[in-house]
Amino acid sequence: MSQVKSDRGSETRELILVTAERLFAEHGVEAISNRQVSEAAGQSNNFAVGYHFGSKEELVVAIVRRHSESVERRRAEMLAEITGSPDLRDWVSCLVRPATEHLASLGIPSWYARFIAQVTTHPALRERVRKESFTSQSMQQAHEGMFRLIPRLPEDVRQERNDMGRMLVVHMCAERERALHEGTASPHSTWESTTDSLVDALVGLWLAPVTARR
Amino acid sequence: MSQVKSDRGSETRELILVTAERLFAEHGVEAISNRQVSEAAGQSNNFAVGYHFGSKEELVVAIVRRHSESVERRRAEMLAEITGSPDLRDWVSCLVRPATEHLASLGIPSWYARFIAQVTTHPALRERVRKESFTSQSMQQAHEGMFRLIPRLPEDVRQERNDMGRMLVVHMCAERERALHEGTASPHSTWESTTDSLVDALVGLWLAPVTARR
Repeated sequence: MSQVKSDRGSETRELILVTAERLFAEHGVEAISNRQVSEAAGQSNNFAVGYHFGSKEELVVAIVRRHSESVERRRAEMLAEITGSPDLRDWVSCLVRPATEHLASLGIPSWYARFIAQVTTHPALRERVRKESFTSQSMQQAHEGMFRLIPRLPEDVRQERNDMGRMLVVHMCAERERALHEGTASPHSTWESTTDSLVDALVGLWLAPVTARR
Repeated sequence: MSQVKSDRGSETRELILVTAERLFAEHGVEAISNRQVSEAAGQSNNFAVGYHFGSKEELVVAIVRRHSESVERRRAEMLAEITGSPDLRDWVSCLVRPATEHLASLGIPSWYARFIAQVTTHPALRERVRKESFTSQSMQQAHEGMFRLIPRLPEDVRQERNDMGRMLVVHMCAERERALHEGTASPHSTWESTTDSLVDALVGLWLAPVTARR
């Protein structure tokens, strides 16, 4: 393939990724067809998504990967800085801040938080997306550091709180992104304050006593 | 209107409500047209939704109201039982248990939890649905009881934690409902255990120290 052709190919790919992210964030993954993505990305070929990505699922995964590199890099840096820290907040921050800082870096409007909220509630895509974005090595490292500093929990409680923590981060970030975009966020409600609120909430969640049961 | 005609009208209404709830829960509100709802409800008249409910928004509100009466009644009963209780868990339970007990009463599969997760993340419907289901008098009473038992919080933190608590309940219930439906829930993961987990989590969330900031 000539250089020109290959450059054009990666430009098209990028255009499709950006367009699909916005459309999925706005309308949901289900409501938007590959054909609509191709059209909105200005492709005369209605099968451009199929040609460049194969399927809608692979397109969704490609959108996630486009962002997760930066999130992962930020998390690896944070982890390197807090090695051996005895402060629970440091480890919980590693679960939250890499994502919120990445979102802040995207400017206004960004769409990625709302995109993630849509795909992690989509029946057919959620497992795949979770594997891509919530089970990386750096996430595991952050979790391990955190678990060393909280009382031992039954495995099912740990799993549930993990799910709840993920939900809080995903949906709070989506709401904040929407409020920033629509201009309805209060003046002191920034990505920075969202980060603090989420870290406070997750610390409370993980330290909460477990009701005797089962 | 004759009795026969009026009965048939309310049967049709009910059929549309049940059908729309399932379709919205499965595919999202955006992906499903009023025409599709009418067709799936077996109505030869494609405008049946319009005729019986006016708009999609009014249809959504009617679905919420169909359930919220039972939820409200349960909450009013719980509140009457715990008047003056000094136990924070009692008040937090009033935020969670009326909804989880109602969901349990619907059997398997139910769709309402997933429906609520879809409509509370829908840009155009969320505010309306929140007003319908999260700001009732009994909810306010439960919140007031709870606030008497936790340290005073800045108004914006209170608002944020309120949002986070709501998200946890909405999305955990939707995931539990889906797992029960798909048979992927672990044997001891019942609506009862979901209630306990959520109450633990909300108690942790509301008692979490607030990081100095702003």
